[in-house]
Amino acid sequence: MPARLIESLQTTEPLAEIFSDESLLQAMLDFEAALARAEAHAGIVPRSAAEAIGRAARADRFDVHAIARQALRAGTPGIPIAKALASRVGQAHAEAARFVHWGATSQDVADTALILLLKRAQPILAADWVRLKRALVRISDQHQKTVMVGRTLMQAALPITFGLKAAGWLGALRRSHVRMEAAFAEALVLQFGGASGTLAVLGNQGLRVGRAMAADLGLGYPDAPWHTFRDRLAALVTACGVLTVSLGKMARDISLLMQSEVGEVVEPGGKGRGGSSTMPQKQNPIASALTLAAASRLPGLVAAFLSGMVQEHERGVGGWQAEWPTVGSVVESTGLALRSMAEAAEGLRVNRRRMRQDIDATRGTIFAEKASMLLSAKLGREKAQRIVARAARKTESGPHRLAEVLAEMSEIKRVLDHRSLRDLETPEKYLGVAEQFRKRLLSAPKRKRE
Amino acid sequence: MPARLIESLQTTEPLAEIFSDESLLQAMLDFEAALARAEAHAGIVPRSAAEAIGRAARADRFDVHAIARQALRAGTPGIPIAKALASRVGQAHAEAARFVHWGATSQDVADTALILLLKRAQPILAADWVRLKRALVRISDQHQKTVMVGRTLMQAALPITFGLKAAGWLGALRRSHVRMEAAFAEALVLQFGGASGTLAVLGNQGLRVGRAMAADLGLGYPDAPWHTFRDRLAALVTACGVLTVSLGKMARDISLLMQSEVGEVVEPGGKGRGGSSTMPQKQNPIASALTLAAASRLPGLVAAFLSGMVQEHERGVGGWQAEWPTVGSVVESTGLALRSMAEAAEGLRVNRRRMRQDIDATRGTIFAEKASMLLSAKLGREKAQRIVARAARKTESGPHRLAEVLAEMSEIKRVLDHRSLRDLETPEKYLGVAEQFRKRLLSAPKRKRE
Amino acid sequence: MPARLIESLQTTEPLAEIFSDESLLQAMLDFEAALARAEAHAGIVPRSAAEAIGRAARADRFDVHAIARQALRAGTPGIPIAKALASRVGQAHAEAARFVHWGATSQDVADTALILLLKRAQPILAADWVRLKRALVRISDQHQKTVMVGRTLMQAALPITFGLKAAGWLGALRRSHVRMEAAFAEALVLQFGGASGTLAVLGNQGLRVGRAMAADLGLGYPDAPWHTFRDRLAALVTACGVLTVSLGKMARDISLLMQSEVGEVVEPGGKGRGGSSTMPQKQNPIASALTLAAASRLPGLVAAFLSGMVQEHERGVGGWQAEWPTVGSVVESTGLALRSMAEAAEGLRVNRRRMRQDIDATRGTIFAEKASMLLSAKLGREKAQRIVARAARKTESGPHRLAEVLAEMSEIKRVLDHRSLRDLETPEKYLGVAEQFRKRLLSAPKRKRE
Amino acid sequence: MPARLIESLQTTEPLAEIFSDESLLQAMLDFEAALARAEAHAGIVPRSAAEAIGRAARADRFDVHAIARQALRAGTPGIPIAKALASRVGQAHAEAARFVHWGATSQDVADTALILLLKRAQPILAADWVRLKRALVRISDQHQKTVMVGRTLMQAALPITFGLKAAGWLGALRRSHVRMEAAFAEALVLQFGGASGTLAVLGNQGLRVGRAMAADLGLGYPDAPWHTFRDRLAALVTACGVLTVSLGKMARDISLLMQSEVGEVVEPGGKGRGGSSTMPQKQNPIASALTLAAASRLPGLVAAFLSGMVQEHERGVGGWQAEWPTVGSVVESTGLALRSMAEAAEGLRVNRRRMRQDIDATRGTIFAEKASMLLSAKLGREKAQRIVARAARKTESGPHRLAEVLAEMSEIKRVLDHRSLRDLETPEKYLGVAEQFRKRLLSAPKRKRE
Repeated sequence: MPARLIESLQTTEPLAEIFSDESLLQAMLDFEAALARAEAHAGIVPRSAAEAIGRAARADRFDVHAIARQALRAGTPGIPIAKALASRVGQAHAEAARFVHWGATSQDVADTALILLLKRAQPILAADWVRLKRALVRISDQHQKTVMVGRTLMQAALPITFGLKAAGWLGALRRSHVRMEAAFAEALVLQFGGASGTLAVLGNQGLRVGRAMAADLGLGYPDAPWHTFRDRLAALVTACGVLTVSLGKMARDISLLMQSEVGEVVEPGGKGRGGSSTMPQKQNPIASALTLAAASRLPGLVAAFLSGMVQEHERGVGGWQAEWPTVGSVVESTGLALRSMAEAAEGLRVNRRRMRQDIDATRGTIFAEKASMLLSAKLGREKAQRIVARAARKTESGPHRLAEVLAEMSEIKRVLDHRSLRDLETPEKYLGVAEQFRKRLLSAPKRKRE
Repeated sequence: MPARLIESLQTTEPLAEIFSDESLLQAMLDFEAALARAEAHAGIVPRSAAEAIGRAARADRFDVHAIARQALRAGTPGIPIAKALASRVGQAHAEAARFVHWGATSQDVADTALILLLKRAQPILAADWVRLKRALVRISDQHQKTVMVGRTLMQAALPITFGLKAAGWLGALRRSHVRMEAAFAEALVLQFGGASGTLAVLGNQGLRVGRAMAADLGLGYPDAPWHTFRDRLAALVTACGVLTVSLGKMARDISLLMQSEVGEVVEPGGKGRGGSSTMPQKQNPIASALTLAAASRLPGLVAAFLSGMVQEHERGVGGWQAEWPTVGSVVESTGLALRSMAEAAEGLRVNRRRMRQDIDATRGTIFAEKASMLLSAKLGREKAQRIVARAARKTESGPHRLAEVLAEMSEIKRVLDHRSLRDLETPEKYLGVAEQFRKRLLSAPKRKRE
Repeated sequence: MPARLIESLQTTEPLAEIFSDESLLQAMLDFEAALARAEAHAGIVPRSAAEAIGRAARADRFDVHAIARQALRAGTPGIPIAKALASRVGQAHAEAARFVHWGATSQDVADTALILLLKRAQPILAADWVRLKRALVRISDQHQKTVMVGRTLMQAALPITFGLKAAGWLGALRRSHVRMEAAFAEALVLQFGGASGTLAVLGNQGLRVGRAMAADLGLGYPDAPWHTFRDRLAALVTACGVLTVSLGKMARDISLLMQSEVGEVVEPGGKGRGGSSTMPQKQNPIASALTLAAASRLPGLVAAFLSGMVQEHERGVGGWQAEWPTVGSVVESTGLALRSMAEAAEGLRVNRRRMRQDIDATRGTIFAEKASMLLSAKLGREKAQRIVARAARKTESGPHRLAEVLAEMSEIKRVLDHRSLRDLETPEKYLGVAEQFRKRLLSAPKRKRE
Repeated sequence: MPARLIESLQTTEPLAEIFSDESLLQAMLDFEAALARAEAHAGIVPRSAAEAIGRAARADRFDVHAIARQALRAGTPGIPIAKALASRVGQAHAEAARFVHWGATSQDVADTALILLLKRAQPILAADWVRLKRALVRISDQHQKTVMVGRTLMQAALPITFGLKAAGWLGALRRSHVRMEAAFAEALVLQFGGASGTLAVLGNQGLRVGRAMAADLGLGYPDAPWHTFRDRLAALVTACGVLTVSLGKMARDISLLMQSEVGEVVEPGGKGRGGSSTMPQKQNPIASALTLAAASRLPGLVAAFLSGMVQEHERGVGGWQAEWPTVGSVVESTGLALRSMAEAAEGLRVNRRRMRQDIDATRGTIFAEKASMLLSAKLGREKAQRIVARAARKTESGPHRLAEVLAEMSEIKRVLDHRSLRDLETPEKYLGVAEQFRKRLLSAPKRKRE
């Protein structure tokens, strides 16, 4: 089940399958079957009717196109599903038909179906997260001592290690994943409230039936129906958003490091990946591009979801009806970004030599802060910065390295001996607590929310 | 071709067809065929090759699922399409295969295909707009003199006419439609620039080939390729956004007027529309709900498009790849909202009696401003307002009408004679220039941009 | 410190004060003072220098306008602050000036300052939440048995209780508040990494200094600097978003219930609240309007924050620089919405009589589902619904109540005796498990994340 | 009047002044004064009263903080302004006070004030646009023949000219500016409708008074009041959005070209611009950073505006109240982005040598497409691409240039003579119609909408 062509760059196959017609239809039918079973158990509908409903509730027997068409007329897919199911049940068991959808409202069906799809999507996202996490831990450990240019505003700043950089990605992604998991846990609850959220049809048996359905479907049982209270879904959607843009940050870094002029890392290629339709030399950062595409869509999709949440009374006019494709796109984009970065991290080629060359190419100006701090204690901050800035400009326009230029400046000679400048340009001697930060990021101290 | 179930409340059948797999695939093939024809005309590829390419370029002969799968690997649908077409062409005419996609880049295919779909969507939107416009003109004319409560912050304010209200909807929708049409006109241009926007492969024949393709495909020929300059599409997307939220305003008004407690208008029902899965009495405002759903999605979708526009150099990393489903959803939602409001307007039942009753139910407090203005000239603005506010509170809590209450107040008796109060509560006498505004809104003066 | 006029409807006074020039400037100076103290403690800067810096770090001694102007030139407020502080320190203690900002980078100052403001905002939001929660618990308890119309798609559906409705608001708000509190707890951490996040200037003392600063400022100490990892802030911004739109849902309900034609609740008025500049009768739902205004801004502001999160390498080009006003607006809007709904809930006038009248005004059609379920077991779901739908239409257009109409229908007489219809229209007998849901919502079972 | 510190990176001084307290207050007072004058002219209020109102309508005489505070209570700034003005007028001319705000509603004041600010902002934006346009035309002409690497997905693709690149920026910006100007022209209209949009207080004189006010204030007179029809403002807000993200594209390109490893252009520095608080070597792309910051905020702000447009009946509950700060931020961010890019373009240092070196550094692989096209006609597209891809990989990993590698491959020798390869790596010979596209972009053919 591949994605539709128009969404082919926004999902993965397993997720496209989950949010497909058949899968969604089946989830709605699963709700109706579970409802009938729970009501049979409570003595509300005959056991034989529940069984007949269960037997009929198979998606491949329904015309999903007809249901989609009627859904547009009805303003909800719940109505045509209930009608089509009753009709099919009735063919086999006339009496059973009248018990289809008993006590439920159309939004119960639609909401629970969405939750069932989310429940299926969760382990797929989790598996890709595990791949990504492992790959990043490995990269970070392997490159604990690999020095590279640290860049601020895309200009060479100070040296860092690639191990720290990868650990930084990991830290943000782990925090974001923890939040997403918490949001999944909260969101995976049954929707069952009947017409106005009181389960009036079921008299005093509403909770009993609801609890049985939740258990049957493997969902949590919430405090109350949530037809117009979409905060749990919103928490999931926003958590997906934060995770995806965090993946986008990693992808942005990779695509920048992979520029022809930088060449410090290369995404894995492989069959069908990274080429151009016309330029044979191309090795494009496709995993990063897809992740950045997801990251560029998510903020707007999050806004679209939140905008629909101000819903009226016991069932909204428009807000609810807008949600399905938004939630689907959010989860699919998140899944694609996770998988793309997992693939990129697992196969990332890291060019240690280029990383050191790029430090070297600054001819020492990357150590200007260090030079300025050495001088600062002697000359004051502002004066030191002014002198070193001058030296840096001279370095850039001339043939010498910063340490050489500095060594020739009279203001410097007075206050710094030659020894101090000797080590100036050794990246390994100006990493501060990079390694300690790296370890803290990897060790993932048990925090309350983890 | 109905929508997929998950999007069944977000599109219409004709638009779902346009943005379907087959249609999109065909549009990409149409690009390749037009390219070959134009190049044959320019003597760049053999005429027989162009004919072979044209014959092979039929969507029903391709495996759209395979192409979607490869598109995800390649990061663009353009690569697998070119490859699949070359392969198919090669089966019939080995030499022709090498001329497939000659001089083009994958984004040329993808962008032009999207534009071709937009070109097909435009007349559908236009036709529904004409229906809506006509219905609103008719409603406004019919209810030129139908008085109703004007409501501010959802509280009764002053009387207006329903004719003015409908004309207000029309005015905003017409302006928004004019902007959308202008944006369509600007956006419907060919994309053809080759690998980096210079058409280098074609030597000095690039413009000649491009112009021929544009003519062949019925598109405009732009100043230059626009691979990373998406402002024309953005102008269309934002214009759709403004139109859709303007339709949302009309839908919000209708759904409010249709509340059980107000009942001043009723949306048309009809087969499968407006019922409930469980409540037989229900006549739900489904057209309004669908329109409000579209209006609630659009701001986020617009943001999603704009967020992707900061694209790098000659082809972006992520921004471009994020666009297709956003543009599709924007146009489909706009089309659904237009069609829904057209249907609602054409069949709207207006309850003149209820409208007047709702004025009457305020027992004159809706004329408090009028009373206060009458007094203001005598007593000053603030004092007048204070007195009338007191009278309004008394009216609300007691059995009398505002004019009666006022007539009994000593402060009033001194400054207003009985005659002034007699007409106080006649809505027709407190409509100001409502009718003039209505006519101005309907007459649609030729403005520069129309 | 009231808001600026242009933002006067988007904040509260205490929050406007927190995000004011003076407060923000002081927070930046507090960072610099804490830095110097921590470095003095670690023996890096002289104690006397740290004291001089601490003495000079008082916002009222700086020209905030000059700093704002220079911030625009520098692209960060951190540079002019450090410079201005050094200059002022130097006036009193020449040697101390050189130790200002020692080892920090401008984003350390700016980020920590923002966090310090958030720390001050948190208890203000918490206090208004407590007011709101208490008021909602009280309302829900008082109206445990107050029946009212349950409305779906703004049409009368079934009876509910106002107690359940208020408990529903409470449930969503409590969940959202719990999430926001968790996000605050995560976000209130120090930013301190130096130029490229390694604290290189401080050699191996970086963590020691950082921990001391965090303790001094009352902030948490994070795993590592987070200059380009903004997920903690994002989690707070999105949690504020979810809470605010949830408040918007409550406000929407109140404004709908307060319509002239419904009149079931009235927001408290009070000095300067709810009047009109011209209509003396008006009692506008201002608290709801302000809350809905906040709810309408938040989705876009959340998107704006998320869009900036894809930041480059060790310091972003644009993403970071976009954040301050967004975060400020998000927190201020959230605070305003909380306070407005607290005020509305505390003073809400509930019109029990009107609530029952509005049920009564449906002349029994609100019990159509009940009637249909009674018949369903006898006639099958579809037939029962058809019959009752017919009866409901007849009721609406005629002078009788639903039970009376039904009693006269031949299809009914055959299957239902008169007794079954007698209780049909008693709201208290068709509330299902409303009370159980209400209690579950109020009891707030200890969930994992609470 | 600099910006507030929290917004100091999001505006310019002249725009901060326009959206300041004093300026906004004065604009509201200007509305009231123009109203009184127009009503005096129509004989509705005494001329002396109008004069007294005009004299009192000076912002410096009002307590803007008190008005902001009362605005929050009232839910609109219009009420406290009218009250404060009446009170001040009354001190000098008791009778005149009662004519303050005669026939207007609070939203008339607030909306027209916003429009008056927009009218003042327009020429500021226009002036910076002219600077930017001129600089880009000059750059493009100067670099008509400057070859550089064309980059797709941030990988070297084919050569282009810097003249074409700059012309591309210009083209998108000019189209976007034309749209923004059209939107300004449409939006700069009076708001004047009275309590419910009928000008009921003025009897049949509403249009006469309105037209006089519009003329007095230098605004257009619209078809009708637009209290809940915000499409004109929306068109302006979205046009600003499209322009700003288009500026963001230019800024992204500049910041990428300015990377330490690329160094092809450098933004102008100048006092206080581009330095670091700690790294003396830094020359940061601040103009680009500020522009990208604006571009990152705008999509969300546009969504925030659109989300508020579904407004109820004759005055919205929340939507309207959310607008002011959004519109202000949108215009200020747009203005900052325009000014920043104008400054960057005017002072941009272009390093022709580096541009050519970066082509050279690909050792010919940038001409892989050219090589493949040469072979394609002989060997077929796919085979040619395969061979050249192999050659490109060999080039990248070895010491030779692409032409040399190709010349040694047996498959090539058979089909291409040495001459064909000689010119392979001359950028000037593989520019296609770059210069023609450049000229088309600069020549700005008169399009309908310009």
